[in-house]
Amino acid sequence: MILVKAGGGRDVAWDAIGRDLASFNGSETFIVVHGASVLRDEIAARLSVPVRTVVSPSGVPSVYTDDEAMEVFLMAYAGVANKTIVAALHRHGLNAVGLTGVDGRLWEAKAKKDLMVRENGKTLLLRDNRTGRVERSNTHLVRLLTGHGYLPVICAPAISEGHDIVNTDNDWAAAVMAGDLGIREIVYLFEAPGFLRDPEKPETLIPRIDRSRIEEHMAFAAGRMKKKLLGAKKALESGVSAVYFGDGRIENPVRSALEGKGTVIS
Amino acid sequence: MILVKAGGGRDVAWDAIGRDLASFNGSETFIVVHGASVLRDEIAARLSVPVRTVVSPSGVPSVYTDDEAMEVFLMAYAGVANKTIVAALHRHGLNAVGLTGVDGRLWEAKAKKDLMVRENGKTLLLRDNRTGRVERSNTHLVRLLTGHGYLPVICAPAISEGHDIVNTDNDWAAAVMAGDLGIREIVYLFEAPGFLRDPEKPETLIPRIDRSRIEEHMAFAAGRMKKKLLGAKKALESGVSAVYFGDGRIENPVRSALEGKGTVIS
Repeated sequence: MILVKAGGGRDVAWDAIGRDLASFNGSETFIVVHGASVLRDEIAARLSVPVRTVVSPSGVPSVYTDDEAMEVFLMAYAGVANKTIVAALHRHGLNAVGLTGVDGRLWEAKAKKDLMVRENGKTLLLRDNRTGRVERSNTHLVRLLTGHGYLPVICAPAISEGHDIVNTDNDWAAAVMAGDLGIREIVYLFEAPGFLRDPEKPETLIPRIDRSRIEEHMAFAAGRMKKKLLGAKKALESGVSAVYFGDGRIENPVRSALEGKGTVIS
Repeated sequence: MILVKAGGGRDVAWDAIGRDLASFNGSETFIVVHGASVLRDEIAARLSVPVRTVVSPSGVPSVYTDDEAMEVFLMAYAGVANKTIVAALHRHGLNAVGLTGVDGRLWEAKAKKDLMVRENGKTLLLRDNRTGRVERSNTHLVRLLTGHGYLPVICAPAISEGHDIVNTDNDWAAAVMAGDLGIREIVYLFEAPGFLRDPEKPETLIPRIDRSRIEEHMAFAAGRMKKKLLGAKKALESGVSAVYFGDGRIENPVRSALEGKGTVIS
């Protein structure tokens, strides 16, 4: 089983991903996790709901999620993005079923109502944050679907122990789920050829990162890439043997990443 | 197996529905279908996307769905409403899994790009309408979930033969699915005590309608109620033995409807 995690950028080519996955002709079992951050930001702007990005004391950015932001999140992720991707995959004969972490308690998270953030050089405590960290996943539901020919297409939000819908980091959740499912390989697809030493320069692609040296690469990781590295680290700690970072904008994006044309972390 | 179809009104009490369904303690298998029309209209208003209601030559209203309207539809139905309902049902220990008709081709529709409508006394032809009529359902996916303790929570849109996402009439789709699944009973819950001779007067509740006399009751049916009657007719033609119309705003809404406290059509 291979987990494919595709980012929420506009140029991620779902048609190419669908064609690529279909070309395996069932010889490999996949599950798909996707983002929708760009669409979320667009809908938030149209609704005049500000997206507030906060930075943790250790420098990792995340989006502060109050009730209004959660509504926008659901519109973008569970609504438009998930169903558009599911339909795109059906065009390639893949029997996709879209789910969020809420459905069947697929992603169970520990709610984190109080959030420490770093702002203008000060550490602040934000309350009533609707986020959580995924701690376990419903492997029964995933296996029930994959075992009967369905392709699960999964995105945030997650559900808390108290049955609240909570925003969560997709990359972390995917890593936890991969560990629970005993998945050996994760492919991350995004709008870059792989992990770059300088995000502006594709020629600075780093082809291999040893798992013992992830921490020192955090220094080059800008913005969301920090979360992907943290996700990769968590995945390798959970038993995944290799994480592939690859370009989601090209033809055969999954095969190219698996062939090591992006960055291989193992 | 009983299909519960709840309308998209603000006062439909999902907490009471969840408590009621949970009180069966697994002695009955349910599937849930829901609307979200009020929420859809609200989001459309916030985004300044006009909701255009058109009326068929036979007098049945529906919403004209272009690409922009479809995006709003997905935000409301698949996004906010479906996941909020799923979380509400989990609070009562029901292992709800939210799906649209797109997922696993659950509701397969014949696309109806050209739409004849009646406007200002004239018949017009509208093109590029993103709607369709559900003709078959994926009973395998529904049975796979219910057979393993999951409660499917389903809403529009549907998917066309050409893999396009299409808006569809929830009541009709529920009736087709009930027929395909061999379901004997459907409970419709909405913001009224049942089928009323005068929609403004609860005391005009009609307790029983014989299936042979549905057509003559169409005359009293205002707006969306016409669709519910058409859905009930379709369901009875598809092998359903009784359709219960009941109040979705009260405690024990499902049991009350099944006990005949609303309108029974059989």
